[in-house]
Amino acid sequence: MNTLNVSEYVQTLGLQAKLASALMARADAATKNKALKALARRLRAAGAPLAEANAKDLARAEGAGLSAPMVDRLKLTPKVIETVAQGCEQLAAMSDVIGEVIGMKQQPSGIRVGQMRVPIGVFGMIYESRPNVTIEAASLAIKSGNAAILRGGSEAIESNKALARLVAESLEEAGLPVDAVQLVGTTDREAVGQLIAMPQFVDVIIPRGGKGLIERISRDARVPVIKHLDGNCHVYVDHTAELDMALKIVDNAKTQKYSPCNAAEGLLVASSIAETFLPEIGAIFAAKGVEMRCDPAAAQILRSEGAHLPADKVLDAVESDWSEEYLAAVISIKVVEGVDEAIAHINHYSSHHTDAIVTRDHMNAQRFLREVDSASVMVNASTRFADGFEFGLGAEIGISTDKFHARGPVGIEGLTSLKYVVLGQGEVRT
Amino acid sequence: MNTLNVSEYVQTLGLQAKLASALMARADAATKNKALKALARRLRAAGAPLAEANAKDLARAEGAGLSAPMVDRLKLTPKVIETVAQGCEQLAAMSDVIGEVIGMKQQPSGIRVGQMRVPIGVFGMIYESRPNVTIEAASLAIKSGNAAILRGGSEAIESNKALARLVAESLEEAGLPVDAVQLVGTTDREAVGQLIAMPQFVDVIIPRGGKGLIERISRDARVPVIKHLDGNCHVYVDHTAELDMALKIVDNAKTQKYSPCNAAEGLLVASSIAETFLPEIGAIFAAKGVEMRCDPAAAQILRSEGAHLPADKVLDAVESDWSEEYLAAVISIKVVEGVDEAIAHINHYSSHHTDAIVTRDHMNAQRFLREVDSASVMVNASTRFADGFEFGLGAEIGISTDKFHARGPVGIEGLTSLKYVVLGQGEVRT
Repeated sequence: MNTLNVSEYVQTLGLQAKLASALMARADAATKNKALKALARRLRAAGAPLAEANAKDLARAEGAGLSAPMVDRLKLTPKVIETVAQGCEQLAAMSDVIGEVIGMKQQPSGIRVGQMRVPIGVFGMIYESRPNVTIEAASLAIKSGNAAILRGGSEAIESNKALARLVAESLEEAGLPVDAVQLVGTTDREAVGQLIAMPQFVDVIIPRGGKGLIERISRDARVPVIKHLDGNCHVYVDHTAELDMALKIVDNAKTQKYSPCNAAEGLLVASSIAETFLPEIGAIFAAKGVEMRCDPAAAQILRSEGAHLPADKVLDAVESDWSEEYLAAVISIKVVEGVDEAIAHINHYSSHHTDAIVTRDHMNAQRFLREVDSASVMVNASTRFADGFEFGLGAEIGISTDKFHARGPVGIEGLTSLKYVVLGQGEVRT
Repeated sequence: MNTLNVSEYVQTLGLQAKLASALMARADAATKNKALKALARRLRAAGAPLAEANAKDLARAEGAGLSAPMVDRLKLTPKVIETVAQGCEQLAAMSDVIGEVIGMKQQPSGIRVGQMRVPIGVFGMIYESRPNVTIEAASLAIKSGNAAILRGGSEAIESNKALARLVAESLEEAGLPVDAVQLVGTTDREAVGQLIAMPQFVDVIIPRGGKGLIERISRDARVPVIKHLDGNCHVYVDHTAELDMALKIVDNAKTQKYSPCNAAEGLLVASSIAETFLPEIGAIFAAKGVEMRCDPAAAQILRSEGAHLPADKVLDAVESDWSEEYLAAVISIKVVEGVDEAIAHINHYSSHHTDAIVTRDHMNAQRFLREVDSASVMVNASTRFADGFEFGLGAEIGISTDKFHARGPVGIEGLTSLKYVVLGQGEVRT
C-alpha cells in the first residue's frame, strides 16, 4: 500500500469501528460475556493454524537476528495461551460496569440528576512484540462495550492476524459486530500516524511500549492518550518507622523484581535513624548485589567500618541519579531531615508514579498522603502494589502517569465515560 | 515585547503558577474561603480605580467602532460587580471537595486502597470580552486549590488588570501565594500559542468563546482542553407523551431563551401523534415568531388548513438544517416512526450536548437514556436544565462536549484529579 492507501485503509477501519461501537454500547452483559467465553474456548482449541502463524513470526525474528529474549516474547506457548484464555474468563466473570448510575439526586427544580457510566466509544491500542496483548486488548474492548482498533508490532503480525481471526469468530458467535475489534493489517508505520489523528472515529489511544514510542505518540496524537511514562518510585523511611517493617518494605520495593515500573528507585531516610537503618538495609542490598548511589551523608554511614559493606556497592550519587528509573539492581539513597524534605525531594525528582512512607506518625502519614503529588501514595506498604489487580480493579488497561481522566492503574472504568441523566416530570426552566 | 520575549514571559508565568500550585494544593479550606470573601469585599469596595480602568476599555471599544452589544459586554456595572462578588461568597460557602477520599476498600493482600481528590495543578483559561470571567476563573482556582493563568480578551485588558490586582490583594490578605492567579499582561496573540503548549507547567486549558477560537485551541494545544463546541439539542415527543407536558417542555426548550447552548434546535415527533401535536406547538411557535423548518410530513401537517399558521413561518428543511445550531427563533421539525428513528436521528445529527424525550413509556425512556450518546440525556424535562447550577454542581467551569475526563456541565470536580491512596501495615508483594 502507498501512503495514501494506508491512510484511507485506516480511516475505513475507523469508520467501521465507530459504527460497531454503537452496537457494542447497547450489547447486554450476557452477550459480551458469551463472546469472552467463546474466545477463551477458541484460544484453547486454536491448534495448528495459530501455531503455524506464530512459527512464521519466530522464524522471521530469528532470521532477522533478534535477541533471544525478544524472540521469547513473541512465543505463543501453551502456557501463554492458557493465561490469556483465563484472562477472558475472568473478565466474563466480572460484574458489568456499563449502565451503572451514580449520584442520582433531586435538585431544587424537582428534576433528578445523576450520571450513567457508558463506553467511551472507540479506543486505539498501539503495542510492540508480545502477541498476547492482542487478546488482552480485544477482551477489554468486549467487556467494556467499546470498539477497538489494534496496531501490534510488525514482528508479531502473523500471530496477531491469527488471534484477530479467533476474536472475530467469537464476536460473530455471540451476535456482536465483527468490526468491534479490528487489527491493522499492515505494518506500514504511516498507519500509526493516521490512527492517532482521527478524532472523528477514535476517542482515546493507549500506547504500550518503550518511553520513546509513548512520547512520540503523545506528541503527535490528535486524540487523548492514556500514557505511562517513567516509574521513578521512592520509599521514605520516617524517624518513627518500625525498623523491621521498613527493612521488609524497602527490600521488597527494590528487590522483589527489578524491571517493573512500580519498583523503588530511590530510598530516603530520616537523619535521626539513618545510622541504625542504613547499615541494615545496606547489608541486605549488598547481599543481593544491589548498587547503592548515595548522597554524602548516606555514603559516610554505609562506608563506615561498622557497616562491613563491599566498597564497590557504595557509590557517590550524581545529580542525575535522583531522577533515574534504573529498572535494575541499583538504588539511590539520600538522608533527609524529615518528612518536609522527603516530600520536597519526591515532588521535585519523582516521576509522580508511586511513592511510599514508612512511619508510625499519624500526622506525617497524613501529610505524605496529601502532599506527595503522585498517582499512588502509600503508607507502610511496598510500592510494588501499584497495580490494577492489587488495587482490586479486576483488569489493567495500563498505568497512567497523567492527571487527566485516569490516574494510576487504569481498569475498565478508564474506558468509560459518565454522561448526565435527568429524570423529570414535566419540569421547565423559569 | 517581541515573540521571543512573549514566549519567555508566558513560560515565567507558567513556572510561577507551578510553584504556587503546590502551596494552593495544601491550603486548607478556611484559608481559601477567607481569600474568596476578601475578594468579594474588595470587589464591592473597588470604586474609582476599577471604574477608570473599565472606562478606558469602553472608550477604546467605542473608538474602534465595536457594536453596542459588544461594548455592553465589557461594562462592569454595579450589578455585574455585585453578581461576581456574590459568586465568590457562594463558592466560599460551598463545602470543600479537596481531600475527599472515596472507595476505600481492603484488598486480599491486606492493603486498603481508595482514591483522594486533589487539585489538578495549573489551569489556563482563555476567554473573550466579558471581564467578569476574570473573577469567575480566579474564584474557581482559589476554591479548587489550583493555580490559574488567565488570558482575557484584548478589548478588556485594562479592566482585567484592575480585577487581577484585587485578586492578588485578596490572596495576599489570606496568606496564599499571589502567583496562584496570574493574568497574561500582554495582548500579543503569541501568548496564547505559548500558554497552550507548556505541558510541564499547565495541566489543562479551558477556552471560552466562539467555536472558531475553541477549534483553533483544541487543534494546537499540547495539553488537554475542556472544550465546548456546538449545542444542537433535540426534544423527541414520543407517541405516549402527555400532550400538555410535551407542549410545555418543547416551548420552554426552544423559546425560554434563544441564545444558550442548551436551547433546543430540533423537534422530533412520533408519527402517530404528529397530527394532534404539531398544530398545537406550531401555533405557540408562530405566536412567538419562531420559524419552523420541516421535513415533508411535518410541513404537510403544519401547512394544512386546520393548522391556521402563517405560511412564512413553515419552511422546507434542507439537509443542513438537521445539524445546525441556530441560537435563534428557528427550529427544525421532523416526524419520525418512533423511538428507534428518533435515537438514530439524534445520534447522527446531534452535537452530543443535550437531548430529551417526552414520554410515559418506561421502556422507551430507558432506551433513550441508554442509547442517546449525548453528554446530558433527559426524560420529561426541558433541555434548558443542562447547566452546572441546575445540576447541583454549585459552580460551572464550562460544559464539555468531550467524553474524556469531564462530560457535560463541569463543576469544581472537573478541576481535580483522583490519586490512589494505599494504607498498609507493612504489607509487601510476594
